[in-house]
Amino acid sequence: MNNNRVYNFSSGPAMLPESVLQQAQAELMNWQGTGISMLELHHRSKEFIELSEKITEDFRELLAIPKNYKILFVPGGGRGQFAMVPLNLLGNKNKADYVITGLWSRIAEAEAERYAKINIVEDAKASNYTSIREASEWLIDPEAAFLHYADNETVDGLEFDYIPDTKGVPLVSDMSSNILTRRFDVSRFAVFYACAQKNMGPAGITVAVVHEDFLDRALAITPSIFNYKKHAESGSMQNTPPCFVWYMLGLVLDWVKEQGGVPEMEKRTARRSQQVYQCIDQSQLYVNPVNPRFRSRNNIVFDLRDTNLNERFINEAAARGLVSIKGHPQRGGMRVGIYNAMPDAGVNALVEFMKDFEKTA
Amino acid sequence: MNNNRVYNFSSGPAMLPESVLQQAQAELMNWQGTGISMLELHHRSKEFIELSEKITEDFRELLAIPKNYKILFVPGGGRGQFAMVPLNLLGNKNKADYVITGLWSRIAEAEAERYAKINIVEDAKASNYTSIREASEWLIDPEAAFLHYADNETVDGLEFDYIPDTKGVPLVSDMSSNILTRRFDVSRFAVFYACAQKNMGPAGITVAVVHEDFLDRALAITPSIFNYKKHAESGSMQNTPPCFVWYMLGLVLDWVKEQGGVPEMEKRTARRSQQVYQCIDQSQLYVNPVNPRFRSRNNIVFDLRDTNLNERFINEAAARGLVSIKGHPQRGGMRVGIYNAMPDAGVNALVEFMKDFEKTA
Repeated sequence: MNNNRVYNFSSGPAMLPESVLQQAQAELMNWQGTGISMLELHHRSKEFIELSEKITEDFRELLAIPKNYKILFVPGGGRGQFAMVPLNLLGNKNKADYVITGLWSRIAEAEAERYAKINIVEDAKASNYTSIREASEWLIDPEAAFLHYADNETVDGLEFDYIPDTKGVPLVSDMSSNILTRRFDVSRFAVFYACAQKNMGPAGITVAVVHEDFLDRALAITPSIFNYKKHAESGSMQNTPPCFVWYMLGLVLDWVKEQGGVPEMEKRTARRSQQVYQCIDQSQLYVNPVNPRFRSRNNIVFDLRDTNLNERFINEAAARGLVSIKGHPQRGGMRVGIYNAMPDAGVNALVEFMKDFEKTA
Repeated sequence: MNNNRVYNFSSGPAMLPESVLQQAQAELMNWQGTGISMLELHHRSKEFIELSEKITEDFRELLAIPKNYKILFVPGGGRGQFAMVPLNLLGNKNKADYVITGLWSRIAEAEAERYAKINIVEDAKASNYTSIREASEWLIDPEAAFLHYADNETVDGLEFDYIPDTKGVPLVSDMSSNILTRRFDVSRFAVFYACAQKNMGPAGITVAVVHEDFLDRALAITPSIFNYKKHAESGSMQNTPPCFVWYMLGLVLDWVKEQGGVPEMEKRTARRSQQVYQCIDQSQLYVNPVNPRFRSRNNIVFDLRDTNLNERFINEAAARGLVSIKGHPQRGGMRVGIYNAMPDAGVNALVEFMKDFEKTA
């Protein structure tokens, strides 16, 4: 790493590819000969509109998103989507199904209660967030407006290894923490969404992908800026979008394409998470409680069997330039976010440190 | 100007101070020795929390905001506020007063109709957006939950030169396009707000300043991320804020302080707008129709009496590095945004060009 940069294992905001940061830095004062910084460029300029369209099509290509889906860039983060999903999808129904596998899907469910009667069809709390039942065991309401789940949960490190079959109930997924890390069948979804600051860019923009059949049912109380259809009709420019953040997201997509696209990210994600889980499983000191089928490939949680060593572990890691490895306050222990932009060298350094630490523990 | 930069007269996103861009560029790869870019830094890190608190206090100091006001940094732009204001302020009342002086206050009024019965107490359309009646002539409803107006309208270049006396009805103002350009008595307001991308930073963050008496009346349908109180309680970090954009706003506030604060910005704004209006008024070619009392100091609109010259005017200006001077599509003609970050040299160059052009027209 150049510039005295560290390996940052934060679960988000997360690392960006170094080459992306370098490009942003190089062209910060004057973007592509416009004489204007991307921090200043007008969103309705020919240049920015072309860029926003390119980014949209790059995203479509990377995830093989069919033409009958709109790709929207919206404000408000994942928490904004927690409101936008019910506001836009309930239509004339007043109930929805929610799957809870961790903190974020629980917050999403609580937000949806403002707008509808919510049926919790699965709650991983029963397993202390270490496993997920098969969707066939869930009591899905066939009349629900939609079913919402989080594909990956960052706090307890729990990730789906399957797409739920809802028997026709429109499916919605929060993919904030694992978007662009594996291929999936987009046609199974009514809506999926992801905030940028884990695998796609800096904080400040969220991508919502909406099947065109679901653009026309927003409740009258929906704020315009939270209306999927109005975003679709305006090219995500109802008002001034966060141009610089959107541009950064575009640079990250360029980087993903250069690296080999989502298939390559999927390989890397599998390889690197296996490397860390293997280190944990072969150790006498570290332990991960999650059912191996549902272990998150992006957010790896583990505990030290001797919790007295926690502080020393964190400090010694930091001394090697391995930072933000402390678990979420709600869970405790350790957590490492290994997103697309984490270099292999960072994962190698982490595993080497974990082994060295265990020897001296 | 260095780096082949142009004078950008866009009404927003607008120019940023060159020294601010240079600082952002210099520290882009590694912010203050953290080894992490501000594009990656965790919002709950000690460093970022301290920064966000410093920015908040700088803003408070710059506008002399009393302690009983909360300063909130929120997503969704001005259009988000158009919904947030009624959602948060209606309480148990179902009606509000709106003043319309241009495009933005009209859009704000339309959005508020989702939530309440709206009484339009003044509509500058009557003067073709060239003047504003005294507030004493408005039929303000003493039972209205609030009265909303836009302090400055960018499309027709119309700006209030007074704060309306509403006889006790809570006052709300959109100050998106003139915040930090003059001092005002904050204690007159229940809420005022401004998006960043004109006088405060890049697009992607909005400041809402809310008197603490107005934090407790949000409607139950208010999305959490649009709830003023939840922002107040969380230090504007209910979820991941747009850290980089917030940081840039902070750099702009630092710059305003270095330059002499809001009193100095007020002087510059007056001097520079007078310089351009004088050029217009002394000319046989250019004309501005607005009642001089209400001429915007930040968005100066004018027409060429011979509209056949419009295209040539725009092209010749661009050849001198004076860009984005075309009027808003809804109005036509010309418009120059002269915000705080526009250098005096840019205004001088504009006036010189206008005089030169008239000679050859």
